Formats: sequence, C-alpha cells, structure tokens
Amino acid sequence: MAQAKEQRTPKLKPGRGRRRAEDVRQATLEAAAELLLFEGLSKVTFDKVAARAGVSKMTLYKWWPSPGILALQAYFDAVEQVFAFPDTGDIRADLTNQLHSFTAFMKKHGSVIRELVGAAQSDPDLASALAEDYARPRRRLAIDRLRIAQEAGQIRGDIDLITIESQLFGACYHRLIIFHEPLTADFTDGLVANLFESITPTKRRRSG
Amino acid sequence: MAQAKEQRTPKLKPGRGRRRAEDVRQATLEAAAELLLFEGLSKVTFDKVAARAGVSKMTLYKWWPSPGILALQAYFDAVEQVFAFPDTGDIRADLTNQLHSFTAFMKKHGSVIRELVGAAQSDPDLASALAEDYARPRRRLAIDRLRIAQEAGQIRGDIDLITIESQLFGACYHRLIIFHEPLTADFTDGLVANLFESITPTKRRRSG
Repeated sequence: MAQAKEQRTPKLKPGRGRRRAEDVRQATLEAAAELLLFEGLSKVTFDKVAARAGVSKMTLYKWWPSPGILALQAYFDAVEQVFAFPDTGDIRADLTNQLHSFTAFMKKHGSVIRELVGAAQSDPDLASALAEDYARPRRRLAIDRLRIAQEAGQIRGDIDLITIESQLFGACYHRLIIFHEPLTADFTDGLVANLFESITPTKRRRSG
Repeated sequence: MAQAKEQRTPKLKPGRGRRRAEDVRQATLEAAAELLLFEGLSKVTFDKVAARAGVSKMTLYKWWPSPGILALQAYFDAVEQVFAFPDTGDIRADLTNQLHSFTAFMKKHGSVIRELVGAAQSDPDLASALAEDYARPRRRLAIDRLRIAQEAGQIRGDIDLITIESQLFGACYHRLIIFHEPLTADFTDGLVANLFESITPTKRRRSG
C-alpha cells in the first residue's frame, strides 16, 4: 500500500537498489507539501504521504515525530524560494518586491499557514517546529538582507533588525491570522513607507 | 448543580425574583474570564461557568452559541481596560505607555490569547468571534486615539491608521503567537521609535 502512486516520482526510483536518503527525504517533503497546499493540514497523514511519495511508512515514522511536523517542514521547503530575498542593492525596492511575492503567495495559500499556526497553539512540539523549522529560517532570510542594508548605511546602525522584520511580516501574519483580512500590495507598501519615511508630518525629529 | 457556587457573586442575587439580564450577563462573563485566565480555555465549559456564576445552563445555551465564543467575549470584557487608551495629548507617549501595559498583561496572560487564536483557526464561528468580539474592538480603541493624533497634525494625513496599528500590536501578536518570544518594553519601544523616527539614517527623504 505504501508503494501505490509511484508514477508521481519516477525520477526518484533508480531502477533497483535502495533510493538515496536525500531522494527519499525530498520525495516525502514534496508529497507532503502537495497534500498540504491543495488538500489541507488534516490530509497530511503518514499513510497518504507514504503512498504518494512511494516510500515506506516505517521511514516516515523513523524520520518525523508527527505528520504535523512533517507538514511544517514540507511547507518551508516548498516556500523557501518565495521567501528568498533578492539583493538589487536597493533595500526599499527589495522589501517591496518581496512583500508583493508574499502577498501573492498568501492569496493562494494563506489558509495553510493559518491551519499550521492554529494547530501549533495546542501542540507544544508543533509549536517548536513552527518556530524552528519555519518562522526562524524565514525571518533569517529577511534579517540577512536587512543586515546587508544596515552595513551599507541604508538602515540606521542602532536599530534592532528584528523590530523591522516584525513590522513588515509580523503585521501581515497578524492580518491573516487574527483578522482574516486579505493582504494587498497597497497594505504592504504602506508598511514599508511608514518605516522608511516616518509617520510624523514635520521634519524628522530624533528624540533619542 | 447550575446553582452551586453562589458565594462568589452575592451582590448579584437580589433576594427574590429574577436577576436582571444585565447582571446575569455580567456574572457569566466574570465567571468565564476567571476560568479562562486562571485555568485555560479547555476549562471554560457551560457547566463550570453556570456553576461559578450561579446562573442556569439553559441561559448560557440561549445566549452564547458555544463556550469558545463565551470565552472570547469574557476575555475582551476583562481586558478592555487594559486596552483602553489614555489621551495625554502626546501620541508617542500614549502609545508607549499603552504598549507597556499590554506587555505586562501578556507576560501574565499571553498563553490565553495564544489558545484562543489557535482554537479559532479550525473553528470558523470562533474565528468570526475572535475578529468581531475581540480584535476589531481592540483595534478600534487604538485607531480612535491615532485618529485624534492625526487630526491634531501629529501623524501625517495620508497614512492609513490600520498600518500603524498593525506595526505596533500586530508585531507583538506575531512575536507571541508564532515565535513564542516574550514581549519586552525594549521591543515595543523599538516599534514606536521605528515609526516615529524612520529607520533610515540620513535626513528624511520623501519618496512618494
């Protein structure tokens, strides 16, 4: 039964012999991501993933502590490219473009992150995985780009970059998860403008 | 059984005759808030709330569609004062103080909002209640204060106030719910500073 839908991953079956661990891992993550993105978190079971990936359920039990954690890792693996930051040298343009990609992605798949965040609040292991396998690596991609900008003098040296990340992506997640309001490019452009231009009307005053 | 712990709410039992609807509602919300804040969301059942408030379970079934929604309304009722905004005329000071109160409250009770948000992601009725009975009224308190500041010329007239609210409170919820990292006054002071001073190092440039 675990060997059912082999046609989906033919390139990963090298004739005879055992598949390489990395191939098995990748096939598993891809199968889990497809189930998650197109059918929802409740459909990511070890049974279904094993069947779709053509790997043994035993392997899944050995490598992943729960289907929820497998789903989270698959999600990050699938979306890593969406969260990858360009570096054109213009931090404001790069943040703007990145937030537009994020908005487009969430328009299609926002319900998945809501499901994962929801499930994590009553499951401490899933909560750790959400932070460690998804949120922190995603934040790291943003912070790395912000640090380059800070070193280039485009962002003040005294600013904690995590506050900036929270005021861009955190503001978006809040809107999705608590308000269930759609993200739009206008909204994310406003977030960027508030930080780069200040919300005060007069010439900039430094109060510190 | 529903009339068990009457000693908790003696002032609400006016001798004979029926309690006023508003008294019953208030006793119910207080009992639900105590259970929620000190024992957790799973302990907010109609049985327990009825017993603690000294009201009939039938009333609870009639007035609230689910214990989760009762818990949410009780939560907002209990914390409304925490989220009330002072108006000293200085918007930056008022936001700073409000975020300090919020931080102190979340240090004690942050796990409750995490539980409510989590449960809401797999329960559409609770999700609506989270938005309508908690998040929007809370946001309204902040927006009302921000609008006064905008009308007083302390915030630029072209700024969507919801973006500011998202970059203050949304950034905090994101930190609590996704990262499970503690809120601190340093963190919230940084959020305020980024918006009021801009994150760029040079004299303010308006790109719009």
